[in-house]
Amino acid sequence: MSNAGDGTIGVGMVGHAFMGRVHSQAWRTVHHFFDLPLTPRLAVLGGRDPERTKAAADRLGWAAVETDWRALVARDDVQIVDICTPGDSHKEIALAALAAGKHVLCEKPLANSVAEAEEMAAAAASAAANGQRSMVAFNYRRVPALVVARQLIADGRLGRIRHVRAQYLQDWLSDATSPMTWRLRREQAGSGSLGDIGAHIVDATQFLLGDQLAGVSALTETFVHKRPIDGDPDGRLDDVTVDDAALFIGRFTGGALATYEATRFALGRKNAMRVEVNGELGSVAFDFESMNELSFHDGTDEDQTAGFRRVLVTEPTHPYIGAWWPPGHLIGYEHTFTHEVYDLLTDIHNGTDPTPSFADGLRVQKVLAAVEASAGDESRWVAL
Amino acid sequence: MSNAGDGTIGVGMVGHAFMGRVHSQAWRTVHHFFDLPLTPRLAVLGGRDPERTKAAADRLGWAAVETDWRALVARDDVQIVDICTPGDSHKEIALAALAAGKHVLCEKPLANSVAEAEEMAAAAASAAANGQRSMVAFNYRRVPALVVARQLIADGRLGRIRHVRAQYLQDWLSDATSPMTWRLRREQAGSGSLGDIGAHIVDATQFLLGDQLAGVSALTETFVHKRPIDGDPDGRLDDVTVDDAALFIGRFTGGALATYEATRFALGRKNAMRVEVNGELGSVAFDFESMNELSFHDGTDEDQTAGFRRVLVTEPTHPYIGAWWPPGHLIGYEHTFTHEVYDLLTDIHNGTDPTPSFADGLRVQKVLAAVEASAGDESRWVAL
Amino acid sequence: MSNAGDGTIGVGMVGHAFMGRVHSQAWRTVHHFFDLPLTPRLAVLGGRDPERTKAAADRLGWAAVETDWRALVARDDVQIVDICTPGDSHKEIALAALAAGKHVLCEKPLANSVAEAEEMAAAAASAAANGQRSMVAFNYRRVPALVVARQLIADGRLGRIRHVRAQYLQDWLSDATSPMTWRLRREQAGSGSLGDIGAHIVDATQFLLGDQLAGVSALTETFVHKRPIDGDPDGRLDDVTVDDAALFIGRFTGGALATYEATRFALGRKNAMRVEVNGELGSVAFDFESMNELSFHDGTDEDQTAGFRRVLVTEPTHPYIGAWWPPGHLIGYEHTFTHEVYDLLTDIHNGTDPTPSFADGLRVQKVLAAVEASAGDESRWVAL
Amino acid sequence: MSNAGDGTIGVGMVGHAFMGRVHSQAWRTVHHFFDLPLTPRLAVLGGRDPERTKAAADRLGWAAVETDWRALVARDDVQIVDICTPGDSHKEIALAALAAGKHVLCEKPLANSVAEAEEMAAAAASAAANGQRSMVAFNYRRVPALVVARQLIADGRLGRIRHVRAQYLQDWLSDATSPMTWRLRREQAGSGSLGDIGAHIVDATQFLLGDQLAGVSALTETFVHKRPIDGDPDGRLDDVTVDDAALFIGRFTGGALATYEATRFALGRKNAMRVEVNGELGSVAFDFESMNELSFHDGTDEDQTAGFRRVLVTEPTHPYIGAWWPPGHLIGYEHTFTHEVYDLLTDIHNGTDPTPSFADGLRVQKVLAAVEASAGDESRWVAL
Repeated sequence: MSNAGDGTIGVGMVGHAFMGRVHSQAWRTVHHFFDLPLTPRLAVLGGRDPERTKAAADRLGWAAVETDWRALVARDDVQIVDICTPGDSHKEIALAALAAGKHVLCEKPLANSVAEAEEMAAAAASAAANGQRSMVAFNYRRVPALVVARQLIADGRLGRIRHVRAQYLQDWLSDATSPMTWRLRREQAGSGSLGDIGAHIVDATQFLLGDQLAGVSALTETFVHKRPIDGDPDGRLDDVTVDDAALFIGRFTGGALATYEATRFALGRKNAMRVEVNGELGSVAFDFESMNELSFHDGTDEDQTAGFRRVLVTEPTHPYIGAWWPPGHLIGYEHTFTHEVYDLLTDIHNGTDPTPSFADGLRVQKVLAAVEASAGDESRWVAL
Repeated sequence: MSNAGDGTIGVGMVGHAFMGRVHSQAWRTVHHFFDLPLTPRLAVLGGRDPERTKAAADRLGWAAVETDWRALVARDDVQIVDICTPGDSHKEIALAALAAGKHVLCEKPLANSVAEAEEMAAAAASAAANGQRSMVAFNYRRVPALVVARQLIADGRLGRIRHVRAQYLQDWLSDATSPMTWRLRREQAGSGSLGDIGAHIVDATQFLLGDQLAGVSALTETFVHKRPIDGDPDGRLDDVTVDDAALFIGRFTGGALATYEATRFALGRKNAMRVEVNGELGSVAFDFESMNELSFHDGTDEDQTAGFRRVLVTEPTHPYIGAWWPPGHLIGYEHTFTHEVYDLLTDIHNGTDPTPSFADGLRVQKVLAAVEASAGDESRWVAL
Repeated sequence: MSNAGDGTIGVGMVGHAFMGRVHSQAWRTVHHFFDLPLTPRLAVLGGRDPERTKAAADRLGWAAVETDWRALVARDDVQIVDICTPGDSHKEIALAALAAGKHVLCEKPLANSVAEAEEMAAAAASAAANGQRSMVAFNYRRVPALVVARQLIADGRLGRIRHVRAQYLQDWLSDATSPMTWRLRREQAGSGSLGDIGAHIVDATQFLLGDQLAGVSALTETFVHKRPIDGDPDGRLDDVTVDDAALFIGRFTGGALATYEATRFALGRKNAMRVEVNGELGSVAFDFESMNELSFHDGTDEDQTAGFRRVLVTEPTHPYIGAWWPPGHLIGYEHTFTHEVYDLLTDIHNGTDPTPSFADGLRVQKVLAAVEASAGDESRWVAL
Repeated sequence: MSNAGDGTIGVGMVGHAFMGRVHSQAWRTVHHFFDLPLTPRLAVLGGRDPERTKAAADRLGWAAVETDWRALVARDDVQIVDICTPGDSHKEIALAALAAGKHVLCEKPLANSVAEAEEMAAAAASAAANGQRSMVAFNYRRVPALVVARQLIADGRLGRIRHVRAQYLQDWLSDATSPMTWRLRREQAGSGSLGDIGAHIVDATQFLLGDQLAGVSALTETFVHKRPIDGDPDGRLDDVTVDDAALFIGRFTGGALATYEATRFALGRKNAMRVEVNGELGSVAFDFESMNELSFHDGTDEDQTAGFRRVLVTEPTHPYIGAWWPPGHLIGYEHTFTHEVYDLLTDIHNGTDPTPSFADGLRVQKVLAAVEASAGDESRWVAL
C-alpha cells in the first residue's frame, strides 16, 4: 500500500492557497536533494473551484485535479492525502483518507476542537496498526536550528529547564482596515492567533523540552471587531469572531515556567516566531526572522569568554543541511516543509511512526482549549 | 530649607552597599556635568557597623559618618536623606526624614507592603505642602533611550498601544549553590525577583505608556528553597522565603495587553531589562544590555525601507546627553543615577514635584501585591 | 530560435558540481513561482564521466546526458547553454555555444584572463545582433536586499557616494590540512579568492553604484603553499598556485573611495559577503549571512529617531518577493539563482539585453587583473 | 618625587576641551573605585583664556588655573602634567614637563611629525632613568573587551594571526556645511582623520597582536576643501588642509594582512571603532558602539555549536570590571580614561613603565607618516 511499486508514491493534496503552494514545492523538490527510497508523484490537486484549481495545478505542477475531495481520497493513484484546508474540514477529510487506507499529512492546528482532534488521533492510531502513517504539519520542528536546540536539551546540555519564553509575533492585522478573511471566522478557523500561530509555539516548546504543559492561565483579546468584506461594492463589514491576540503563562510537568504570546498586531514584527529556554547549565534562543541562526549559551564555558553564541546552522553536520548548500549559504522558509515530507516519506518507507503525530496534535489542541477556558474564566488556572 | 544658603545642599545617605556606591557616584559627579543651581555636598554616610561605614565613607567621599540613621536624619547639615537600605527600613527612615523636614530620595521598591507604601505616600504628600520633595529611585526612567521612547509614545508616534512585553532577566541565582543573601529573605526584601527587578519593569512600562495596569494574572516560583549561609564554617543552609521568578499577564486601563517576567535564573542574561511596546502606528524595543540603543519602528515609513531602527541614543539632542560625550561615545549604568539626582536637585530648587513620586511607588506596590495575590489564588485575575 | 515553439525552451547545462546543483534547482523551480512566457526544459546535462553525469542527471532532473560538451552545444533541443565549469573552459564553451546560435548563461568569473574575457564579450556582442542573449552569473545582483540598495542609490537617496567597503569572508581553507581542490590551481581557476569571491564584490559594488573602479592598489597572499591531495594513499602534497587572500583599495570614477577584502581564511565567517556604502544623504549595509535584511540609514530622518533600519526584505513590494512567501518567511541562497534565470528567460522572450552582460564580466576581469598587477608591483596604483 | 608625601599626587592639566573634560572625570573618580596608593589631586588647570579657563576649572573641579603652560609645568604642587592640547604643542609641553622632573600623560597622536615624536620618545626614555613616567593616551587599550581580546591573542587562543581589519568610522564631517575646526588644519592637527582616529586603530591593532606593521600602501582623500568659519558674520570659508579619509592595507612583521580605514564621512556611524582579527584557531571582533561586548569565535568548539560568542565584558573577573558594577550593568566611554589613569598612577607608585609608552606613540607616528608617504606616491608600498 505504501507505494506504487515503481519506487514512486502518489500524493493528493486538498487546498492550494498559501499552504498548498509551499507543500507543492516540498513534494516537487525533496527527491532532488535527499536520498529517498520513494519519489513523490504530484498526482492530484483538490479544490472547489474547477478553474482556479486547474490553474493552480498547472502552476504548481500537479498532474490532475478533483473538485470533490472525496473523489481525490478515493483515487488509486493517491497514497498520501495532504490536507491544506482550513481547520473546519480537517477531521472529515482525514477520517475519510484513513478509512480509504491512505497516509495522511494534515496542516495545523490538527482540528478546531479537542473532540475532533480526539477522533482524529484515535483514527490515526487504528490506521497505524494497518501500516498507515499520519503526521501533523508543525513545520517549525524541521527548522535545523530548532532541531539542534532539541538535541542540546535532550543531551542534557541545558540541564534542568527553568524557563521557557515563546512568542509568535506578526503584524498583518495591525491595520484595522485590512479585510476580513476566513482566518478571522471561528467556524472555519476554530480560533484566531491562538490556533494559527499560538499552536506553533505550543508544539515547538513541547517538542524542544520533550515535556508537556501541565496547566495555563490566559488572556485573549479581539482588538478589531469588524472588518471590511474584501471586494464588497457596498463596503459592508463582517464580524471578527476569533481572538486577535492570546497571552498565557504556564508550567511544564517537569517544573519549567513558561510565557506565551501570539499576536498579529505586533507592528514591525513579520514572522517573529521566537523561543528562549533557560536551563541550569545552558540556554538557547531562536527567532525565525533569523531562521538560520541559533543562539546558544553554554554555562560551562569559562567566565572570561562565555556568552551567547550565534551558531550559523548551515554546517554539513547540522540536521538536514548536508542536502543543501555550503556553510553560510542560507536556506529559507520552504525548506522546513521539504524536511517534513522527507521525514514522512522515510517513515512511510521504513514503517516507523512520524512525529508530530496526531496524538501530538491533540496535545496542542488541549492546550489551546485550556487557554480559551482560562481566558473565559477570569484567567483562572486550568490544569491539563 | 532647601539648601544651605551657599549654593550647596547637604546629603545624608543611609546604606553603602551596591546602591550606596552608585548613588555616591551620582552625588559626586552631577554638578561637574549638569548646570545646577544647587551643588550637592556628601555630608554624612549612615551605616550600622562603625568601621565598615568609616571605610566606605572614605572610599566613596562622604565627609562624616553616623551609625544611627536617626542621628543622620536629625543633622542640620543634611537637607536630603537618601535611603539605600533594604526595603524593611524604608518606611521608618522616610517618615522620620519627612518629619524632620528633609527631602527624601528612596530606593525601590518603595516599601515591603502596600500598607507601608500608603503611609509613605501620604506622608510625602503632606510634606510636599511644606516644600519637601520626595522621589523613589526607579532609575530606569532616566535611561535616555527610555525617555525617548516615552516621548514618542506621549507624542502619539506609536498611536494607540496594543501590546507591552517586559522582561527583567538576570542569572546570578541560577547556580543553586550560590549563597544566601538578604534579598532572599521575605522579612527584609519583601519579595524576591518580583520586588527587586519586577518592580522596575512595572514602573517602566507604566511610565512609558503614561497608563496604569488595570489587573493581572500571575505565577510565582521558588526554584531553590535552601541556600548555604555565606562563610558558615558548618556549611549550614538557610531558607529562601521569596520568589525566584514571577510571571504575569495583564491589561492596562487604556486597553493594551501586557506580559511580564522577572527572574534571576535566566542563564546567560546578565541585566536584560527589556521592554517592547507595539502600537497602531509604531513600535519601540529596548534591552538594557545595549542601553545606549533604542529600537524604533515607524509604521508610517514607506514599505520599501521600513524596519526597526537602531537609534544610538547619544546625540546632543537626546535627553541628558548634551551633558556628556560626543555621539557614539557611550554612557553606562551609573549615569542613570546621575540623571536622577540632577532632576531631583532641579525639582528641589524649582519647587516642583519630582517623578516618580511616592504615589508612583505606591502604584507599583499595589501591582506587586496583586501579583502575589493572584499567584496565591490559582492565577485568578486580580483587578487593580 | 529563442524557444521550441511550444512555450518551452531547452537548457543544456555543462557541469554538475556545486553550481550545477543550484542552477538545476533554479531551472526546475522558476516557472512554478514566476509568470513566464517560456518554461525551461532541463534537456541535457554535460559532464565528462558518464556514470557520474548520469547519476547527477537523475538526481537533478535532467532528461539526457552528454559527455562531450561539443555534442551538447550542437543539440537541437538546447536553446540555452548554461556553463557551470571551472573558468579555464568558459571561453571555449561560450564561443562554441554562441557560434551554434544558442543563448548563454556563464558562471563567474567570466574567464581566467582579460584576453579571454575580451574575446567572449566581443562574441556576445556580435551574437546579440542575432538575437542571442548572454549573461554572466553574478547571482548576488539578484539578492532582493541588494536590489533595494541599488534602487535607493539610483534614486539618489544616498546622495553623492563617498565610501564603499566590501568584504567577502569565508573560512573553509583556514585549516592548513584541508585538501587540495581545482579552485587552488591557477591553470584551472585563474586566481584564488580573488576570482572566486573577490569577483563577486567587485561586480556587486559596481552594480550598486552604477559606477566603475578607476584604479586600485593591492596586496595578495598565499598562506598555505602545499595541501594534501584528496584521497592520495601516499599522503602526497600538491602546490597551491593561487592567492589565499586579496586586499585592495581603490577609487570609483565618481570619486568614491573603496576597500575590498576577499579571503577564505577568516575563521568563523562562513559566507560573509558584505557591502557598506556611505553617501552624503544616506548609507546602506548588507551581510549575506543575514541575506534577507538590508541595513539602511536615512540621513534625512530627524536626529531624535535616526538610525540604521533593519529592513526585512520580504515584503510583497520588494523585488522578486511577490513570487514567494508572506512577510518574514525568509528565502535562501538558491533563490538568487531562480531570480537570475527568471530575468534571463524574460530577456530572451522580450529580446532585451540581460545584465550582467559579458561586457560587465569583462569589466570585473580587468579589475582582477589590475589587482594582480598592483600586488606584483609593490602595491603601486594601477589605473583602469 | 612621585608624590606629595601625604599619599596624594598633584596633577596639572593643559587644555579643557573634550579631552580635558574626560580626563578630569578620570582624575576625580579613579580613587573612589580603584585601590590606589596615590590619590590624585586636581591641582591646576592650564588654558590660554583666563575667564574660560577659570570657568572650566570650577566646573571640572580643578583647584587653580594657569594661563601659561610653562607656569603650570613649573609648579611644585604638580607632579603629573596631563597634555590635552592639539598636537602642535605636545612636544614643547612634554619636553618642558620632563625637564622639570614631572611625569607626563600626553594625548594622542603623540606629535604632529615623526621628528617630534622621536625627540619626545628620547626625552621620555632619559627621564625614565630618573624615575619619571610617560604615557600616551591611547585610551582604547583600556576598553575591557579589547584587553580580553589582547589576552586571548597573547595566550595563543587565536593561533597564528592571518587577518586584521580595522575601521574607525564617524560622520560628524559628512555635512559639507559643518564649520571649520582646528582638527582640519594641518599646522595644528598634523593630519585629519588619519591622526585623529586612524592613530587609534593603528595603536589598537599593534597592541592586540603584540606585533608591528611592516609596511603599508595607502590612499587619502579630502572630500570637502573649504568650510565656513564658525560664527563669521561675512560667511567666509577657510581651507581644509588635512585628509578627510585615509585607507590603507598593510602587513604585520608576523605575516598577518591588515586593512585600515579612518573617516569622518561614514554617515550613520557615530564612533564605530571596529577591529576584527582572524587567526588559525579563533577570531575576535569588536565595535566601540557596543563597547561592553566582545565577539569571540573559538575555532576549537565542536562544529554543532560553534559560533561567534557575544561576550558581555562586565563580569567581575574581566579586566577593570571588579571596580565597577554587577554583570550586565554597563560602563561607558569615560571609564576607559579612568582605567588609564589608574594604570598610570599604579606605575608611578610601583616605578614601572606605563604602556603605551612614548616609544609606542612614536611607532604609531611612523605608520601615519608611511601612510602619507604612500598616498603621496601612487600608493606605492612603504616599508616600516
